[in-house]
Amino acid sequence: MKSVGIIGANGYTGSELVRLLAFHPKIELQFLYSRSNSDTRISEIYPDLISVCEMTLTNQTEEVDILFLCLPHQESKNWLTENPVKENVLVIDLGNDFRLESNFQDRNFIYGLPEIFKSEMKSAKSIANPGCFATAIQLALLPLAKEKLLAAIYTTGITGSTGAGQSLQSTTHFSWRNDNVSAYKTLTHQHVDEVLLTLNQANENEVQLHFVPWRGDFVRGIFTSSIIKCDLELNEIQERYCDFYKDAAFVTISEKPIDMKQVVNTNRCAIHIEKNKETIVVHSAIDNLLKGASGQAVQNMNIAMDWEENTGLQLKPTAF
Amino acid sequence: MKSVGIIGANGYTGSELVRLLAFHPKIELQFLYSRSNSDTRISEIYPDLISVCEMTLTNQTEEVDILFLCLPHQESKNWLTENPVKENVLVIDLGNDFRLESNFQDRNFIYGLPEIFKSEMKSAKSIANPGCFATAIQLALLPLAKEKLLAAIYTTGITGSTGAGQSLQSTTHFSWRNDNVSAYKTLTHQHVDEVLLTLNQANENEVQLHFVPWRGDFVRGIFTSSIIKCDLELNEIQERYCDFYKDAAFVTISEKPIDMKQVVNTNRCAIHIEKNKETIVVHSAIDNLLKGASGQAVQNMNIAMDWEENTGLQLKPTAF
Amino acid sequence: MKSVGIIGANGYTGSELVRLLAFHPKIELQFLYSRSNSDTRISEIYPDLISVCEMTLTNQTEEVDILFLCLPHQESKNWLTENPVKENVLVIDLGNDFRLESNFQDRNFIYGLPEIFKSEMKSAKSIANPGCFATAIQLALLPLAKEKLLAAIYTTGITGSTGAGQSLQSTTHFSWRNDNVSAYKTLTHQHVDEVLLTLNQANENEVQLHFVPWRGDFVRGIFTSSIIKCDLELNEIQERYCDFYKDAAFVTISEKPIDMKQVVNTNRCAIHIEKNKETIVVHSAIDNLLKGASGQAVQNMNIAMDWEENTGLQLKPTAF
Amino acid sequence: MKSVGIIGANGYTGSELVRLLAFHPKIELQFLYSRSNSDTRISEIYPDLISVCEMTLTNQTEEVDILFLCLPHQESKNWLTENPVKENVLVIDLGNDFRLESNFQDRNFIYGLPEIFKSEMKSAKSIANPGCFATAIQLALLPLAKEKLLAAIYTTGITGSTGAGQSLQSTTHFSWRNDNVSAYKTLTHQHVDEVLLTLNQANENEVQLHFVPWRGDFVRGIFTSSIIKCDLELNEIQERYCDFYKDAAFVTISEKPIDMKQVVNTNRCAIHIEKNKETIVVHSAIDNLLKGASGQAVQNMNIAMDWEENTGLQLKPTAF
Repeated sequence: MKSVGIIGANGYTGSELVRLLAFHPKIELQFLYSRSNSDTRISEIYPDLISVCEMTLTNQTEEVDILFLCLPHQESKNWLTENPVKENVLVIDLGNDFRLESNFQDRNFIYGLPEIFKSEMKSAKSIANPGCFATAIQLALLPLAKEKLLAAIYTTGITGSTGAGQSLQSTTHFSWRNDNVSAYKTLTHQHVDEVLLTLNQANENEVQLHFVPWRGDFVRGIFTSSIIKCDLELNEIQERYCDFYKDAAFVTISEKPIDMKQVVNTNRCAIHIEKNKETIVVHSAIDNLLKGASGQAVQNMNIAMDWEENTGLQLKPTAF
Repeated sequence: MKSVGIIGANGYTGSELVRLLAFHPKIELQFLYSRSNSDTRISEIYPDLISVCEMTLTNQTEEVDILFLCLPHQESKNWLTENPVKENVLVIDLGNDFRLESNFQDRNFIYGLPEIFKSEMKSAKSIANPGCFATAIQLALLPLAKEKLLAAIYTTGITGSTGAGQSLQSTTHFSWRNDNVSAYKTLTHQHVDEVLLTLNQANENEVQLHFVPWRGDFVRGIFTSSIIKCDLELNEIQERYCDFYKDAAFVTISEKPIDMKQVVNTNRCAIHIEKNKETIVVHSAIDNLLKGASGQAVQNMNIAMDWEENTGLQLKPTAF
Repeated sequence: MKSVGIIGANGYTGSELVRLLAFHPKIELQFLYSRSNSDTRISEIYPDLISVCEMTLTNQTEEVDILFLCLPHQESKNWLTENPVKENVLVIDLGNDFRLESNFQDRNFIYGLPEIFKSEMKSAKSIANPGCFATAIQLALLPLAKEKLLAAIYTTGITGSTGAGQSLQSTTHFSWRNDNVSAYKTLTHQHVDEVLLTLNQANENEVQLHFVPWRGDFVRGIFTSSIIKCDLELNEIQERYCDFYKDAAFVTISEKPIDMKQVVNTNRCAIHIEKNKETIVVHSAIDNLLKGASGQAVQNMNIAMDWEENTGLQLKPTAF
Repeated sequence: MKSVGIIGANGYTGSELVRLLAFHPKIELQFLYSRSNSDTRISEIYPDLISVCEMTLTNQTEEVDILFLCLPHQESKNWLTENPVKENVLVIDLGNDFRLESNFQDRNFIYGLPEIFKSEMKSAKSIANPGCFATAIQLALLPLAKEKLLAAIYTTGITGSTGAGQSLQSTTHFSWRNDNVSAYKTLTHQHVDEVLLTLNQANENEVQLHFVPWRGDFVRGIFTSSIIKCDLELNEIQERYCDFYKDAAFVTISEKPIDMKQVVNTNRCAIHIEKNKETIVVHSAIDNLLKGASGQAVQNMNIAMDWEENTGLQLKPTAF
């Protein structure tokens, strides 16, 4: 049994990690750190955790084998500076601090998208977990990047309200968000750079990603559609996708149309490709809190610890 | 008072017309025709109509001044063939029969998008009401077409379940659709031709529209985002939009981000434009049953009858 | 044209009044008062009001014929104390300040449930508008109270999120409320006293109301079911309900089961009665912001001003 | 490893059993029987099952150790008559055929509510799984029945759309059900008899249950509130509840208010009790497909097979 600490356990991604790790057979939760809610049982904040995890949040850290950072973006650096972590501790950061700049202190953070960097993660002690939209878009496009078929990409994506976190905001007020759709960070979403870094490495040509994110009136899930010019036949494209993902534990290439809810409460990504004339559209769907955050973090931990990749991730889908 | 008949009054667009026309001060509902539900009060099918309209559906027609056809697509032609209508009757077809082919019998159907064809509709006796997505996309793009600035367009749109009509389908089953998003008719939606016909007339260059429609987990509303290359400055674009729509009764160019629900249960279209580098995104929102169908049909009737354009269309928004 | 001022126009009930009064043919909005948002256009806060009402909120009052108070509960008294209102001004309070204690200053507030106090309101200058749950429950039970048939009542009601107002709270966070149900103020809801005051006046016996309010995962609407012992035959009960409400402009006694959405975005109340053995259940449904607040306030204004009761209240239902 | 067959695997409760049993460490799915969909992969009907279960539905049965019947109500008897099952096979019926009449063929069905009949189930070969509302109501009331404190009970409950099954019905049409609430089977729901049978056994006095079921606008979950006269102090009541459920693996007595979603996608039941004067209200919440159906069936299987009661039921809550 390896010991685990979670920094920022009272947020959405932190609590989702608790939901996963409470039943993970290879680890033991050692401490749940929260500056703002210390001395509160996490099940008081998240009553679904009653009887699942009855630990009390603390503002004290302890030595552990594995440390997850679930802090607001750009606070992980500060935290690691103020709270030095021994070099043999596996650190997985769910923020965006080390996705673009991988070197910090003596650590070199691997970008934690296992579908391309699994081998690099095998001996890693530092993993930068990808963003939710970044995961959905990259998984939709990586096989094309590998074939150097990408140039201009036009992507629209829609995300659930948990993507906006637990703080109360006008855009997460139920009376406003219910039955509503709106766009935000049009063409300027912070995940674009993250996606381009990976795609350009693979593609070698310069990729242009025009990304329009939408807020959806649901809680969990991301659905994206990317429009791309492509001369290959549809069956050739499908073959290359299947080949690219043949060893991927959590990616499904579906010949039938997909829907977002088929992956909600799972760590899977579903992909479906359609073609009309010279244009293809690649659809992808994930659960933003799982494959888009905490589930992928557990997957990456499993890889780095050399455990079965799906340990603790065989989750019953909600389906409905 | 002019007399009105509705063919297909028991469907979603037909019943929405009843909701509007029941309070319209210039007309009187003469008959509500339904083959399948004749002899049933419409308020038994739609209990919101209790005390609003207590008429009984009939399978008999009568002479009227204005006739709305709310039939399944491609059934309007058959109906007009089997039920000849006098030439001085204003016929407004909400199906797609006469949008692309405007001539039928002795009638020449005007495409009922009042923001461009208002003057043509003034003396018209035959109007082909536009499709819901077609309305939202055209209103988003017409000012650019007029400036001949369109070439390739990448549009994603999301629609409420009322767009799928009242028949029971697996994609309108609550257990499936709630909290779900999915794509359908990718790149092949029937409204694309309708949009291109108008845009190409205005633009003179050939426009390419890559359109990905999504099913949303709400009942009323359409939201679209279109990505386009454009060299104009944002303020110039906005000025041209404001100028283009300066006489439009129901189009708002918003400097602030828009959300879909701000137009639900109204006949309005809200438009917002954003720009990053050489790329602009135009967002538009409508209520698919109102500006996207029955509301626009009433607007067109008002224009054709030379009444105030917003008669009967000053609707209280639901807002929440 | 009578002039109207709204105090607290930037809240949910205040803005809903604006939506209604903007199209009311007998009045003119003179000022919209808001301490916290003065100098802001109300359409910036509620973009659905773009082109419906482009007035700017102010912290100055003016002389008007009719004044609506849309303040937090128990602030109306303070406001009237600090801002004396001439005695010939019609004051309609949407708070709960004058529902139980009707005398204040020289004013005697009539409880504004038109189905029982219409004649009293005809010459009134002071009206205390009922609470939303109080309206739904009283309309469900008044005919039985009149027959002196009430004793113990067991009521459950569910309300939309707009009942909780526009402030951000954990119970109106979308991620929490979506797909959720919960109880609050069990047996202690503030509307119980209001209901009992009316029912006991009519019933003469002491009525006991056991009321369990629930939070629903929708935005607009209230649905209640009340369980009561009753020896009358069902058809007798229905007759007395129909008789009781024969002059009510907005109450429907439905022989068929009702659903909440059939009255959403209308000022109507739908009632349905069922019986099994010696027990009856009365279901009622209203829109909490309309018949439960601002719509009823306009209805009361119409009565007090001797206008047609439904003036400005012929609202298109959303239906879907 | 024990072998399992599911009759009616393509329905909601059948497919939910597949979701649970696919990851259950003590069993192996042997066959999934469906008359209507044989030769179809279950993952084609429920794409969330892709990579979870890729079995093909069959209309052939095989010998198994454990058989689950997930048929429409009153079809289990026919099935067992036409398809004799060896006496040493554990049969768990999720329909209502054997809840009230426990003897059939040579089998004596135990009512599968483990919180009272756990010991009876330990050697059982025949289990009648309780109904969803029946489970939620009984768990809310059993401790009071044991104390013989029940007389008249007034219960309202609300259920998700999966309670209505996968067939397309007007009450499960998304356009109707979204944002809607309605009552059905008022005072006559089929689960009342089931509840009374158990409560009257425990209570010894005659219990009267007045139950009003509502349809909710969500997919999974049940929430109930029961109003009862009770002289005990609140803390005494709570103690007796805690005592009654001290060995229950899946029941939580919460001192804080509960919400339905805290148990969604889990096998748990959350209970909260409130008191005002002589009246108490007991709230309970379950996931209708899990503790209300398939989850409880697995729990019962675990008990009958003498496995850990929570085997295969440590489910990650959806929480949001």
